[in-house]
Amino acid sequence: MSTKNLVLSVNAGSSSLKISLYGTQHSGGDELEPVQLILTSSISNISAPPAKFSFKVSGGTSKDEQLSSVHDHASAFAHFIDCLGREADIDRARITHTCHRVVHGGDYTDPVLINDEAYKHIERLSDLAPLHNGSSLPVIKTCLSQIPDAKSIAFFDSAFHRSIPAHISSYAIDQKIAKQRGLKKYGFHGLSYSFILRSVSRFLQKPAESLNLIVLHLGSGASACCIQHGQSLDTSMGLTPLTGLPGATRSGAVDPSLIFHYTNKAGRMSHDKGSAVQLHVTQAEHILNTQAGWNALAGTTDFAAITAQRKDDDAARLAFEMFADRILNYVGSYHLKLGGAVDALVFSGGIGERSKELRALIGERVGCLGYTQVDEERNGAVDGTDGVVVDIGAAGALTKRLLVCRTDEQLEMARQCTLGSF
Amino acid sequence: MSTKNLVLSVNAGSSSLKISLYGTQHSGGDELEPVQLILTSSISNISAPPAKFSFKVSGGTSKDEQLSSVHDHASAFAHFIDCLGREADIDRARITHTCHRVVHGGDYTDPVLINDEAYKHIERLSDLAPLHNGSSLPVIKTCLSQIPDAKSIAFFDSAFHRSIPAHISSYAIDQKIAKQRGLKKYGFHGLSYSFILRSVSRFLQKPAESLNLIVLHLGSGASACCIQHGQSLDTSMGLTPLTGLPGATRSGAVDPSLIFHYTNKAGRMSHDKGSAVQLHVTQAEHILNTQAGWNALAGTTDFAAITAQRKDDDAARLAFEMFADRILNYVGSYHLKLGGAVDALVFSGGIGERSKELRALIGERVGCLGYTQVDEERNGAVDGTDGVVVDIGAAGALTKRLLVCRTDEQLEMARQCTLGSF
Repeated sequence: MSTKNLVLSVNAGSSSLKISLYGTQHSGGDELEPVQLILTSSISNISAPPAKFSFKVSGGTSKDEQLSSVHDHASAFAHFIDCLGREADIDRARITHTCHRVVHGGDYTDPVLINDEAYKHIERLSDLAPLHNGSSLPVIKTCLSQIPDAKSIAFFDSAFHRSIPAHISSYAIDQKIAKQRGLKKYGFHGLSYSFILRSVSRFLQKPAESLNLIVLHLGSGASACCIQHGQSLDTSMGLTPLTGLPGATRSGAVDPSLIFHYTNKAGRMSHDKGSAVQLHVTQAEHILNTQAGWNALAGTTDFAAITAQRKDDDAARLAFEMFADRILNYVGSYHLKLGGAVDALVFSGGIGERSKELRALIGERVGCLGYTQVDEERNGAVDGTDGVVVDIGAAGALTKRLLVCRTDEQLEMARQCTLGSF
Repeated sequence: MSTKNLVLSVNAGSSSLKISLYGTQHSGGDELEPVQLILTSSISNISAPPAKFSFKVSGGTSKDEQLSSVHDHASAFAHFIDCLGREADIDRARITHTCHRVVHGGDYTDPVLINDEAYKHIERLSDLAPLHNGSSLPVIKTCLSQIPDAKSIAFFDSAFHRSIPAHISSYAIDQKIAKQRGLKKYGFHGLSYSFILRSVSRFLQKPAESLNLIVLHLGSGASACCIQHGQSLDTSMGLTPLTGLPGATRSGAVDPSLIFHYTNKAGRMSHDKGSAVQLHVTQAEHILNTQAGWNALAGTTDFAAITAQRKDDDAARLAFEMFADRILNYVGSYHLKLGGAVDALVFSGGIGERSKELRALIGERVGCLGYTQVDEERNGAVDGTDGVVVDIGAAGALTKRLLVCRTDEQLEMARQCTLGSF
């Protein structure tokens, strides 16, 4: 095959890189998906070498190796491109588009074709979220030089929240300064929410524009989103991904005074050697983003371990119960924000998709608001159930349903790229 | 009269002082109140002289004057004591107890008799909230020297929230550091919540221990409290009064990263001359506590003016709608936290007691959760209605009622002082 018909989706985390390759020529299968997965690859531990590399052609077995040659996102991406030819016999020249997930899109409300001007703009707006955008930029640069004929497109995790009205997205601060410096709630996980909205719409056979959903994206980074008539009305993250729900290493919402009582160096610049990218962040942001969360509470970033230990270990129980409490705070808020007219409460993200214990607890607590009961059997069998969306509620519920959605940010980018005008 | 039978309640704000004097000898009247109001006094503009002084014997007319001699809380209090003899012919030696509202009580969970040790302890814990505790200390000192024979008792606004469980009061940060430095949610407005709980219990003729309430204390400082079985289960303020709802000059909850993007001097010490007391606070805390809130949004600290202008003025509308949105966030959360079993939603504080518009809006929005409807007539007539608690809901509702409570922190201190073991 040599036709130009491939789309590459690249998702750069602070110390990881996830890549999926899709074909855009329809060859049967799922009529509703405009792209088909060809292979996936992931590189982790980039900032703590040796990096772990995995490469898996769809339907095949995974090839895993440790790489001492990879020491940053650029060399990680270059290694992947090299593998593409060597392991899968795919010519990189067939790639027509590469999609890049960029966490913070600032004033961008749509995906953007990356030219010099856009690149510089993304660089500038990354000042708002250096910890989160930092790793995307070197990957984009490498991509532009290694696959020069493909179009590179930036997809912003904040874009889905463009619809949040001003009285919800504004902070109670001087609005002149707020506008000058772009200080407002942006919200994140937008590619995930976009994927979930579309998937739930298909599952419920209702148009997306008619749906009211409370969506929980629960992973090592966690957020909640209130969707009204298919648009984001509110979300738990804010100016940056730091606030809202706690995460694996993130504090979530704290009193803004707290950090000044935690350290008297809060405002000084951080010089962290553990990060793969040179960052311009304060000690405060560094501590609250990377030295907090359930890792600080219970000594592990693994929420499954916390869940397993919660009955015997005080610290694990604190982390588990705190996470549930904070999640329920948003569910209660968003239920009222939607006037009680909610089609479904949707669990997603690594924890939302895997923790039947957390789903059971949340499900039980929202019963008082009229949500359907958790079906214990269905809830316990999610892992073994096929399908993007799984119903875990009692049979027959028409509204206030309880669903699990296997979210896929890379697929969402490829899908939007193919359906869009790039 | 020369019997020793008077209790003085002192409430020091950042630039104001409110004082009430009570008699403790029962002379008919309200059988349920252990104290009777004799006179009130208030001094404002202490940090922006000339200070405004008002002095009013109960049932009489108010005497108002401007004082160029008053320049701090100590001289303001001394002026009041002077007036007590000169204007009301009351010998200060008759005062048996003086009650002081102290905002931040740290690990104190009950009122405390102020001896040297307690004074030093309050001084130390004031490091957590210098902006809020700062003015209490000089008043306590003056009081100890001017009324040496009276017992001075500190009442802490955080004490009511001692019952909040650890998974709700803890932040997702290193718990060793949190415990060392006292970094957790304390919550404030506790004297007000305590007063309201007791008053609503009397009004509904139900024991306080059986009540589930959502209470909104809405003033220039605003907070919400979730009361379950007569105890605080959660509240919107945190380590300090800064977070949670926005206030007249306070931002409320913001992304903890925000201030570092607002100013690059966030961590530096503030040197504000406008404050009556020398404070050890960062620029960040100073800006978010004193240069934010609806004053920063709409150019006034007067919420009534914002309410009046909201239909014609974008900035006023933003401030009004933002406040309502943030309040509803807590109401939704707390409703779910109480499993939907709520006896009443209670409005209090200057705005909660006076803004029929805000009450009407909140009342309408919570209808979807099963709250009774706002009775337009009763809601509009609150100002002209007697009684500590006023019902603004439709007649006949037994649960999920809508109430207004005229809160009184000074009375609550005098009451607790008289009923307590001091």
